[in-house]
Amino acid sequence: RVNGDRLWDMLMEMAKIGPGIAGGNNRQTLTDEDAEGRRLFQRWCEDAGLTMGVDTMGNMFMTRPGTDPDALPVYIGSHLDTQPTGGKYDGVLGVLAGLEVVRSMNDLNIKTRHPIVVTNWTNEEGARFAPAMLASGVFAGVLTQDYAYARKDMEGKTFGDELKRIGWVGDEKVGARKMHAYFEYHIEQGPILEAEEKQIGVVTHCQGLWWLEFTLTGKEAHTGSTPMNHRVNAGLAMARIMEMVQAVAMDNQPGCVGGVGQVKFSPNSRNVLPGTVIFTVDIRSPEQAKLDGMRARIEKEAADICAALGVGCSIEAVGHFDPVTFDPTLVASVRKAAEDLGYSHMNIISGAGHDACWTAKVAPSTMIMCPCVGGLSHNEAEEISKDWASAGCDVLLRAVLETAEI
Amino acid sequence: RVNGDRLWDMLMEMAKIGPGIAGGNNRQTLTDEDAEGRRLFQRWCEDAGLTMGVDTMGNMFMTRPGTDPDALPVYIGSHLDTQPTGGKYDGVLGVLAGLEVVRSMNDLNIKTRHPIVVTNWTNEEGARFAPAMLASGVFAGVLTQDYAYARKDMEGKTFGDELKRIGWVGDEKVGARKMHAYFEYHIEQGPILEAEEKQIGVVTHCQGLWWLEFTLTGKEAHTGSTPMNHRVNAGLAMARIMEMVQAVAMDNQPGCVGGVGQVKFSPNSRNVLPGTVIFTVDIRSPEQAKLDGMRARIEKEAADICAALGVGCSIEAVGHFDPVTFDPTLVASVRKAAEDLGYSHMNIISGAGHDACWTAKVAPSTMIMCPCVGGLSHNEAEEISKDWASAGCDVLLRAVLETAEI
Ligand SMILES: NC(=O)NCCC(=O)O
Ligand SMILES: NC(=O)NCCC(=O)O
Repeated sequence: RVNGDRLWDMLMEMAKIGPGIAGGNNRQTLTDEDAEGRRLFQRWCEDAGLTMGVDTMGNMFMTRPGTDPDALPVYIGSHLDTQPTGGKYDGVLGVLAGLEVVRSMNDLNIKTRHPIVVTNWTNEEGARFAPAMLASGVFAGVLTQDYAYARKDMEGKTFGDELKRIGWVGDEKVGARKMHAYFEYHIEQGPILEAEEKQIGVVTHCQGLWWLEFTLTGKEAHTGSTPMNHRVNAGLAMARIMEMVQAVAMDNQPGCVGGVGQVKFSPNSRNVLPGTVIFTVDIRSPEQAKLDGMRARIEKEAADICAALGVGCSIEAVGHFDPVTFDPTLVASVRKAAEDLGYSHMNIISGAGHDACWTAKVAPSTMIMCPCVGGLSHNEAEEISKDWASAGCDVLLRAVLETAEI
Repeated sequence: RVNGDRLWDMLMEMAKIGPGIAGGNNRQTLTDEDAEGRRLFQRWCEDAGLTMGVDTMGNMFMTRPGTDPDALPVYIGSHLDTQPTGGKYDGVLGVLAGLEVVRSMNDLNIKTRHPIVVTNWTNEEGARFAPAMLASGVFAGVLTQDYAYARKDMEGKTFGDELKRIGWVGDEKVGARKMHAYFEYHIEQGPILEAEEKQIGVVTHCQGLWWLEFTLTGKEAHTGSTPMNHRVNAGLAMARIMEMVQAVAMDNQPGCVGGVGQVKFSPNSRNVLPGTVIFTVDIRSPEQAKLDGMRARIEKEAADICAALGVGCSIEAVGHFDPVTFDPTLVASVRKAAEDLGYSHMNIISGAGHDACWTAKVAPSTMIMCPCVGGLSHNEAEEISKDWASAGCDVLLRAVLETAEI
């Protein structure tokens, strides 16, 4: 078993970097706070005897050597970046649990045939730069580095420039590394494990996603002196699309979700009907057919809504991954580890996207989940217990040891 | 008749200050650009022999003396501030036409019994600081200066601090001045005069307004891992309220309007359901009963919509004025002036709010309107012709001369 207190202390220490306004964190990717978090993680890893490699996407790989020079490493990873009003555990738990696994191996003087590499992926959240899981996407060859470098935040700053600015452009070619296996431990971010009173989620699948960025073009006009029948109201079109997305998701119950997190009105003045409205629809489903069916229906009905109002409508997919099935052997080893340790567990489908969704394209991959209070995440009030955190980390240690071969 | 070329040249010169991105202006109140515009106007006025007074709200009063030391002045005013993506004429025309009236009187060596005071009111637009017509509202005693000074822009800067920063806090007590009459010349900002092919709008009334700022409180949560039935979706509540406001306005046709210009999602991240949504509903009607009826229905139905979704709803009125009836004597003098000059004219109700709505509380007031292309305003593409501009200014000169007594 791992040292749960030590893991918790690392979590609390990391949470001091980029504190939020309500107990959580604002340590968005490629900010000064992200750089500081990376340095702290690097120091901890080097103190534990790991050697650092960094690739040109800023992904950090901290290696504990194996006994067989020809054996590919077992990777354990997640992300240290957070939402603008994020929690202390989303992502961070998976990275620091990886480090705790290594520290426990050191304490117990355990050697593995395969090296262990603890990984921090850049820009998992996609809050500052869409899409989410950007750097693992490039690692897996699904996205190009040029595309990633050109991604812009709301202020127009690019990913490439910001990565350079914070000093974390490494020299490794992205995706050059080959993995024996990839494990990711994460909080559930949903309500199921807590409601079912299970300590461990054995993650069998991850639902797929589309992020559809709508740009609606109306006629910027005075809210007072423009008669109702003269309006080309892009805001009203947005409202109708939001309601329609809700209906599409509800028609695809159980399992599917749909919603809008980001909205921008221009010029955003109280007495001006917006000339432009930009917003992002987020739809997800574990079933490919449902996911694509929802997208098609949303695009069709949005076009009808806009046409009826005379509003221009363009849609760009700014994020996408297909539903993922995790590696059955690794999934079985996670289940067996929970079983052996006497932890209650259940199969679960990840509602959120994770870097494991992209590594699954290039290596056997799987995930472990622990519950979170009230299913709350992407909220500063996100909470887990120390016991939950360490139970999942115990399972991670055991499954990794099996895979990395003692 | 006035010098239409000179008026037009002043308009084009002023438009160089705080240029927009698409041919219009961004000269928002209490910005450096506003200060620069004020200095240019001051210089022009002083060159025309006017003397400046400035009150503690930054309102500028440029006086041409009358022949009777006991006669109260006739005021001609409007505003030099613009929307963030505003036109070159909204407000500016009325201020510079006032100056052109004085310059024409100088040219023709006309003396009036009553002094003439050309006025620039601070923060008419209400784009940066709600409500609109803030400084004329304090002048009329409807709002207090303390309230006005405490108003905040989106960055949290206050009106009081910004007025000080740009150096336009005057020493006159606001509202100390008494007016014999107040005239305001403005572009229509709506489509009626152009459609009816009239040169002059004789403004008999102004419709009333409520700005209702909604703060909706949902549960900030992950868009992917939060099941539909766990959501407390403030964005969806906003969409439903927008659709409902549209329905309320449509049920009150003809004449009423309702819409939303400003929206703010927090934290505004693609994969986070908003914890807080703030937006402003703008409703207007020329009829008091309809205006208040719309407000009551919107507040009631919004409460129902939010309750059904479990979303918290608070509403603050951040702007309001009742429908206004302008002074019949001044209205008649405007109509007669148009008549005498041979300009086509019609009665019109102002769809937008104007400083004249507040001066009407303390002095006989009225307005003159000219058409604008396509009824477009609060849009950088706002356009009028030189002939339209000078026809209205001719009417202004004639009506002012009648009121100020030669
Ligand atoms: N785990 C997580 O919240 N990832 C962000 C990407 C997503 O929106 O699912
Ligand atoms: N004239 C004008 O656009 N005033 C701004 C106040 C309003 O929204 O009516």
